[in-house]
Amino acid sequence: MPENTSRTELSALGEFGLIERIASRVHLQHASSIKGIGDDAAVIDPQGLHQVVTTDMLVEGVHFDLGYVPLKHLGYKSVVVNLSDVFAMNATPKRITVSLALSNRFPVEAIDELYEGILLACKNYGVDLVGGDTCSSPSGLVISVTAIGEAKQEDIVYRGGARDNDLLVVSGDLGGAYMGLQVLEREKAVFTETGAQPDLVGHDYILERQLKPEARKDIIGLLPSLGVKPTSMIDISDGLASEAIHLARSSGLGVRIYDEKLPIDPSTYRTARDFNLDPSTCALNGGEDYELLFTIAQNDFEKIKGNPSLTVVGHMTDKASGYSLVDKQGGVHELRAQGWDAFLRKH
Amino acid sequence: MPENTSRTELSALGEFGLIERIASRVHLQHASSIKGIGDDAAVIDPQGLHQVVTTDMLVEGVHFDLGYVPLKHLGYKSVVVNLSDVFAMNATPKRITVSLALSNRFPVEAIDELYEGILLACKNYGVDLVGGDTCSSPSGLVISVTAIGEAKQEDIVYRGGARDNDLLVVSGDLGGAYMGLQVLEREKAVFTETGAQPDLVGHDYILERQLKPEARKDIIGLLPSLGVKPTSMIDISDGLASEAIHLARSSGLGVRIYDEKLPIDPSTYRTARDFNLDPSTCALNGGEDYELLFTIAQNDFEKIKGNPSLTVVGHMTDKASGYSLVDKQGGVHELRAQGWDAFLRKH
Repeated sequence: MPENTSRTELSALGEFGLIERIASRVHLQHASSIKGIGDDAAVIDPQGLHQVVTTDMLVEGVHFDLGYVPLKHLGYKSVVVNLSDVFAMNATPKRITVSLALSNRFPVEAIDELYEGILLACKNYGVDLVGGDTCSSPSGLVISVTAIGEAKQEDIVYRGGARDNDLLVVSGDLGGAYMGLQVLEREKAVFTETGAQPDLVGHDYILERQLKPEARKDIIGLLPSLGVKPTSMIDISDGLASEAIHLARSSGLGVRIYDEKLPIDPSTYRTARDFNLDPSTCALNGGEDYELLFTIAQNDFEKIKGNPSLTVVGHMTDKASGYSLVDKQGGVHELRAQGWDAFLRKH
Repeated sequence: MPENTSRTELSALGEFGLIERIASRVHLQHASSIKGIGDDAAVIDPQGLHQVVTTDMLVEGVHFDLGYVPLKHLGYKSVVVNLSDVFAMNATPKRITVSLALSNRFPVEAIDELYEGILLACKNYGVDLVGGDTCSSPSGLVISVTAIGEAKQEDIVYRGGARDNDLLVVSGDLGGAYMGLQVLEREKAVFTETGAQPDLVGHDYILERQLKPEARKDIIGLLPSLGVKPTSMIDISDGLASEAIHLARSSGLGVRIYDEKLPIDPSTYRTARDFNLDPSTCALNGGEDYELLFTIAQNDFEKIKGNPSLTVVGHMTDKASGYSLVDKQGGVHELRAQGWDAFLRKH
């Protein structure tokens, strides 16, 4: 993390000063954001649309390590992970609130960096920052973001809508964010032991997947243009296996995934091999990819076929068939959820 | 905090187990809560109403001390402080999300206690728990609540609507929560030094003000029945002085408060004296009372006169007159915001 040349203590800015500093950098984009920062609550005009609400908490030492995560990236990611949940409802995120608990080891300049990332995500995704809470923390940094999106009632896609034989489709590629994390942790360990500067050359793609993930706003736009509405959808935060099981459970079905179909970027594949990890396992359980996983009717296959952003990785089955993984030799195994962290769970 | 007889480790319950445990205890009350816990986001049907959104974060060691705050009370309070912000918009809270970061020193039974308080508040205030996030924390407990309320557009009351000469009115009485905190901290110090059991006799009212505050839902119901709509409103979390200045600043006005008008409960008064504190200072700056502070037109005075829940404590002035406090001898002093914690600030 580059050092700032100046350091302003939070106490010097004061409570009102900090809010005004944040508020002065916020420009509401939507007329439907009637009131943002500066009252007891934000006010929203839903304009006849349903609202979707999701929230995620990021905790220092659990979800991120400031030893290798720049604050600006952290701010960006903390917004994106929430927007990803909104897209997973086939809705459009419009507003967020951001609450921070931070210790006095963070100067005002650090908060500025964090908000730079938060506001960049707001700009890129067309989202208004409408409120929040900033308080002190005895130790680490905690970021809690709530995102609110909107959609027509009939457009919302739930986890529970899949039908037997629906195709299971994933956007983008998988396992990259997990391999990016492995590289960062290896280089941090090397640095701690030897003082050697991190060697991150050649890992641009997977590092960006880890440090600056994007939510698949484009897919939410693409699908209607292809004439496809998913029957069920979820975003991949814990890994493909875990999320596929979520869709199956919620829909009262089983699911079957084919190893040979998993979309894995060459750099993810190569790095996994370097780490003596099975690339498929990374793709299935790596997590933090923030791709969208959804089901479509078999009849819609022709509409998505050949689209470089979309890969059919399996299909839904009846409930009795359970959750299964077909390996490259045709062997059938039980599919298990092994998220990247057993105790991280949105509900 | 009473010891539980059994202790179940979170790891034994597992990620899905914890969510299912929480979800099984939640019963949505509102048909407009289309989807609660169990998808990527909750889904709300606004039914033509504007939505208000507020969020507050409570951090162990900053906002609460588990040495004397029972978890059930903490859960209750963490909801109430958010609902208070919704009422301060003259809106009705309908839904909350709750995110928790907690270390493995908390067994499942502790989380149960916390949710018991959260769900009791939901029941008492007619609010649906529609989502959240539970994750681990390296050290203390962090609770982040987001509350969403609704109101007709024309009913919403902002901080900035006060006019010159409007009367400044407060609900209930002030300073009690602060004095309750003083008693708790004194008894904790005595216990730490001598091992003597806390002597809390005779402090029921102020302890309840601190440990189990209520949000003034009744006032939001009372005012329309009296034919009164506030011109501006805020809830008192940081102390009367600070909040009155908020209303004045937001409205481009000054404000004048009369010491002799401050509503102070006899037990608050007596305890302040025992602590060698000025009761008026406690009422002005104590904070955490979660009463409503609002302005009304002079013409509406007759409508609220004599109501035991409402006290006129001052009036708005032109901006040039600034923020002033008139003491019991008629002397005029500058009114200053000295909230109970200089670095706790909702925006």
